[in-house]
Amino acid sequence: MRAVLLTIGDELLIGQIINTNAAWLGEQLSESGIDLARIVTVGDDADELHRELDRSIQDSDIVLLTGGLGPTPDDITKDVLADYFDAELQFDADVFDDISRLFEGRSRHMPPSSRSQATVPAGFEVLRNTAGTAPGLWRTFTVDGRERIVAVMPGVPHEMEGLFRREVQPRLRARKDLRIIRHSTMRTAGIGESTLQEKIGDLSDLLSPSLRLAYLPNSSGVRLRMSAFGESINKVDALLGRLEDRLRERIGSYIYGIGEEALEEVVGRMLLARGLMIAVAESCTGGHVSHQITNVSGSSAYMAGGIIAYSNRVKTDLLGVDRELLENEGAVSEAVARMMAEGVRRRLGAHIGISTTGIAGPTGGTPDKPVGSVWIALADDQGTEAVLLHLARERILNKEMTTTALLNLVRLRISNKK
Amino acid sequence: MRAVLLTIGDELLIGQIINTNAAWLGEQLSESGIDLARIVTVGDDADELHRELDRSIQDSDIVLLTGGLGPTPDDITKDVLADYFDAELQFDADVFDDISRLFEGRSRHMPPSSRSQATVPAGFEVLRNTAGTAPGLWRTFTVDGRERIVAVMPGVPHEMEGLFRREVQPRLRARKDLRIIRHSTMRTAGIGESTLQEKIGDLSDLLSPSLRLAYLPNSSGVRLRMSAFGESINKVDALLGRLEDRLRERIGSYIYGIGEEALEEVVGRMLLARGLMIAVAESCTGGHVSHQITNVSGSSAYMAGGIIAYSNRVKTDLLGVDRELLENEGAVSEAVARMMAEGVRRRLGAHIGISTTGIAGPTGGTPDKPVGSVWIALADDQGTEAVLLHLARERILNKEMTTTALLNLVRLRISNKK
Repeated sequence: MRAVLLTIGDELLIGQIINTNAAWLGEQLSESGIDLARIVTVGDDADELHRELDRSIQDSDIVLLTGGLGPTPDDITKDVLADYFDAELQFDADVFDDISRLFEGRSRHMPPSSRSQATVPAGFEVLRNTAGTAPGLWRTFTVDGRERIVAVMPGVPHEMEGLFRREVQPRLRARKDLRIIRHSTMRTAGIGESTLQEKIGDLSDLLSPSLRLAYLPNSSGVRLRMSAFGESINKVDALLGRLEDRLRERIGSYIYGIGEEALEEVVGRMLLARGLMIAVAESCTGGHVSHQITNVSGSSAYMAGGIIAYSNRVKTDLLGVDRELLENEGAVSEAVARMMAEGVRRRLGAHIGISTTGIAGPTGGTPDKPVGSVWIALADDQGTEAVLLHLARERILNKEMTTTALLNLVRLRISNKK
Repeated sequence: MRAVLLTIGDELLIGQIINTNAAWLGEQLSESGIDLARIVTVGDDADELHRELDRSIQDSDIVLLTGGLGPTPDDITKDVLADYFDAELQFDADVFDDISRLFEGRSRHMPPSSRSQATVPAGFEVLRNTAGTAPGLWRTFTVDGRERIVAVMPGVPHEMEGLFRREVQPRLRARKDLRIIRHSTMRTAGIGESTLQEKIGDLSDLLSPSLRLAYLPNSSGVRLRMSAFGESINKVDALLGRLEDRLRERIGSYIYGIGEEALEEVVGRMLLARGLMIAVAESCTGGHVSHQITNVSGSSAYMAGGIIAYSNRVKTDLLGVDRELLENEGAVSEAVARMMAEGVRRRLGAHIGISTTGIAGPTGGTPDKPVGSVWIALADDQGTEAVLLHLARERILNKEMTTTALLNLVRLRISNKK
């Protein structure tokens, strides 16, 4: 089953809102085994929408539409459907009752324009919207001997989601011919996309149109998306299992998780399980490491706190970094990174101390310490280790990449401990 | 000028990532006076992309593509372009040098697959990517007697944004036929959207299809986007000026800037101009305030540092918060917020000390201190003030909103001083 999604609204084209509906529906369709071939966004323009609708009905089985169902003149979806299917817009008393009740429930007077929302094009089944005034629509029909489906939903995300779950999804699932598709995401840190690919090496004996692998890099590492297609859940899971085993064999130490769990959550879980407290000393990351750690709900159970040592004075007074050493080696040095990690561990009475010091950029580099030179360090009862990172020229990206590398260092240290 | 945007990648179709590139580019095009007629997302599928490319070249002046430029086999954009324009993929020594330098700068070995990123289809101009290995591409040509433009950018958001700003936008702006549209953004903090609207009041004597006002709320405040359309720059600027004057008259004290400058940049500029150093004590924000302040390049000139007092021990030992008071009043209290701000100011020898303590959520609330209760405080040589915020149920949103409120407190304190 091949689907096309049409999302409608000027606000999407001028970037006033981000199209989260598209991602949400894409995920839902994918999990239902429906191939989404294309997402098209058009503005509040009847001709453009008419053209896209026509094209999508020709080249796919399912056409989903969202948006353009409101009461104002720029809401054109129902007019275009009526025109396309040569159907009258008819007043629907049940829909009108729903809308009236909604206004009553909110103790508000129903404006005359909302009456237009109670009209539906003839030949469409009404899908009741319990959360708003725009009803959904459903129609099945035949083109060139094959059945087509058109499903229309409002553009307000929570209304769309409710209507899809309650009305659209069950109807789609009742159709036949659904292949099984399963996705699984492996999350890695501490390695770039191309080196990762090199280490994974040739997978041509495993990969096929039924088993695919995609690389998704960002500042928190490279995610590997595995997708398997087949006739039965067992077959599909077996395919995914084989690929996952091969990847673990080849890049095991870089994998920190499967699924949606972020690195800071994985590290948090490990600290919690072992009863370890962590303390952070940040120079170039300026608070970003602590911010990431404390984004996890419940992190106060393992996060003691941190010291943001942006000035040298804070490094010496609060973290106990040796003044002479700071002058001789410079703030961006292995020795200072080590003393910061050890200092914050001692000062805050934590099991693990971690630190960052570097040149975040975009200015401030020197020939032997260019922008992107960052030292990270970790101190615990087994000793201190430090790593030099060579990052990019962008300040915020450098903060993010440093945080990923440092959290990964914590992960590896704790893993090796057990 | 009519544009179409093609965004490429399976991950967009299955909802694994949200298409933020589309919104960002939509906004940029709109501000450049270019009409974006359609956004189409296709997967890593050469036939689908070929079809969309063909159609977009036929029905628009500008076709922008993002994504599918990586080194892996699922990256198909250059192959499709080569095929479509019947052009060879040629090795480009300059691009290869750029990629090599990028790997060298990161002290990493360049894998063989990255060599493929140095090939470009003949007839395309290379747009250098300073932040990653995938170069952008640009081509102008004529179809049916009209000039067409194809511009190709990587899919990684920060690479795409940099490349668009540096290479694509100036080339587009050099083209003719652009209507005059000017946008100006007024940035406010410390007031919600509906209260703001109420204070601004009726603008019907000013607003028209040629002069529009949009409210864009997010966690860093409400931005007011003013858009003016017209035949001459003078007329357009006069329209914008009248609206801006009216807004300043009605909501002056909430406005912290015009344009792209963020609140942390405005505050940083003010601190720098007055030679003031700031120090931060964070509990519930866990590093986010310091992170925002240090996102500004050059912030080390006014940021002394910070203490992340996640545990009570850090609050008493490092910030000098009274132990008894902490027990009696609780960590989330006005008294503790004040002592934290005063403590960090004293401890770090700064002119201004600021603090946060609250319940970020989503759990941890009590009947008299529900989730979203946050105290912020500021201490300087004129005394200490504290403010209680009532925020939402979402942890990260609460951190962001607290940071905005606290930076705004700093802004107002410094403004009133002068």
